[in-house]
Amino acid sequence: MSESSESPLVLVHRTPTLTYMDDHLSRNFRLLKTYASPDPLPVFLSRHAASVTAFVNIGRLKIDAELLSHLPSLQLLVCTSVGTDHVDLAECKRLGIAVTNAGDAFSDDVADCAVGLLISVLRLISVGDRYVRSGKWAKPGEFQLGTKVSGKRVGIIGMGTIGSRIAKRLEPFGCIISYNARTQKQSIPYRYYSDVLSLAADNDVLVLCCSLTDQTRHVVNREVMESLGKEGVIINVGRGELIDEKEMVKCLVEGVIGGAGLDVFEKEPQVPEELFGLDNVVLSPHAAVATPGALESVAQVAIANLKAFFSNQPLVSPVRLG
Amino acid sequence: MSESSESPLVLVHRTPTLTYMDDHLSRNFRLLKTYASPDPLPVFLSRHAASVTAFVNIGRLKIDAELLSHLPSLQLLVCTSVGTDHVDLAECKRLGIAVTNAGDAFSDDVADCAVGLLISVLRLISVGDRYVRSGKWAKPGEFQLGTKVSGKRVGIIGMGTIGSRIAKRLEPFGCIISYNARTQKQSIPYRYYSDVLSLAADNDVLVLCCSLTDQTRHVVNREVMESLGKEGVIINVGRGELIDEKEMVKCLVEGVIGGAGLDVFEKEPQVPEELFGLDNVVLSPHAAVATPGALESVAQVAIANLKAFFSNQPLVSPVRLG
Repeated sequence: MSESSESPLVLVHRTPTLTYMDDHLSRNFRLLKTYASPDPLPVFLSRHAASVTAFVNIGRLKIDAELLSHLPSLQLLVCTSVGTDHVDLAECKRLGIAVTNAGDAFSDDVADCAVGLLISVLRLISVGDRYVRSGKWAKPGEFQLGTKVSGKRVGIIGMGTIGSRIAKRLEPFGCIISYNARTQKQSIPYRYYSDVLSLAADNDVLVLCCSLTDQTRHVVNREVMESLGKEGVIINVGRGELIDEKEMVKCLVEGVIGGAGLDVFEKEPQVPEELFGLDNVVLSPHAAVATPGALESVAQVAIANLKAFFSNQPLVSPVRLG
Repeated sequence: MSESSESPLVLVHRTPTLTYMDDHLSRNFRLLKTYASPDPLPVFLSRHAASVTAFVNIGRLKIDAELLSHLPSLQLLVCTSVGTDHVDLAECKRLGIAVTNAGDAFSDDVADCAVGLLISVLRLISVGDRYVRSGKWAKPGEFQLGTKVSGKRVGIIGMGTIGSRIAKRLEPFGCIISYNARTQKQSIPYRYYSDVLSLAADNDVLVLCCSLTDQTRHVVNREVMESLGKEGVIINVGRGELIDEKEMVKCLVEGVIGGAGLDVFEKEPQVPEELFGLDNVVLSPHAAVATPGALESVAQVAIANLKAFFSNQPLVSPVRLG
């Protein structure tokens, strides 16, 4: 019997392009691959996965009660994202299934991207790039002025690892940081706002990097955007559903807010086409985590969680199940 | 006699679009405006400016011995840029003309822009924006991965106010900073390289923010780019002539270097068209200083220099004349 046949069995689901964990997983575990079968997923799971205890969900496949009903032996669900809004955590809790996420693997890259989007929106970097490439600069004319980044008041919604790394990066820009979170954090030196409306009223930029939950869905609605005001800018590196996207599009078109840098969208990869012609937005294809370094890190975190599970050690990045 | 007719006379030259100092200047001085006359500049100067002692050059009009020969009474040349490579400083020194520049007025904005370009190049922010706007994301396909910003080794050429502010901003990204400058600065904690070739060899990113002088013209040549290497990225917020642009275009096309974020060009507003189709470059129309805040600041600095001059006080931002 080969060594690999003795290693634990892990169920793996991924989209065709998310291949970055294949080598890591196959070196460490025997794999039951949903994507290698032509069967519809529920059929595949019912036929082959009844005894599976660990499941790696690479990407954002919705994990609900119906899907979990096909996995009666499941004890561990390993997610490769930071957010677990695609998972019915209450059902996992009820069934005694532990859930892990990407932990800290993406924090630096998401924070970097948030700052990049912020500067790009305020200082018109993508607009300027299009302007030069169009050949317009060579003709008489004037490029519009951007907006100063240094000294801006930045309100961060969600002061976890990503939020605090964004804040840390913006400090030497002379930005004045404040934040909203479920609860005030004693270790965080920035001003805390218990409500988002006041946070919006007192800031020039809102950065969204909180979890998507029932409480945070559409946390940025029309009223918050009106409170942020016509010079105000929104940066979203969390989830599209944190913003009432339909209202946001109107607010951007009507000048109710000044601009937006968006890595995520409500129905991605569908993006409202009204945004395509706007110069006050920077659009990003959910790429805040998309670096080789981050993918390597999340693969390591996933493997570490699986190894911990199979050796009865504490999980590396468990998700709080409420 | 009205108060304004008693205020000192100042010669002003500007391009049609650079109107941002008009109010400031006219509130404080009587103005002799080159741009209000249809006469060719030398003719205008010879006819009207023989007694002028102070000259504000808004923009980058070349100030050479020939032009200065029409201004026999000149004692102060106020420039609105940080770099004074458009001024024959040696001739000013010989003629006893003091020169001032924008001082610190642009430092934050240029530093902000440099960091924005750096993130935009490495994390493909402008590329991603084009990708989403083109509608390609909605179709099956995969957006390319960017490169991690956090932890990059960044070599800064020119460690003046702008360079040190860029360094300060990149520190919380975990970037490892080193620099090249005319001389090692005792107050700067980063590693000093006396030669650019070694700086390039030891870094992932080169940021150019030094003055353009005979010593720094083409400081980044083919050899330096080969030393930087195929993953290496150049950010230029200094002057186009700091880089051998023709060789840079070749290096970008051939993959000798990895990418570039360019706010300045050798023959701007002409930009080499070979760059327009490249995804590894971000092009910016010399806009690193283009915010209302920066223009307000430089106007204040210019006025302060003029007031100091007319009241025999020390100048606010004198340029070293060698």
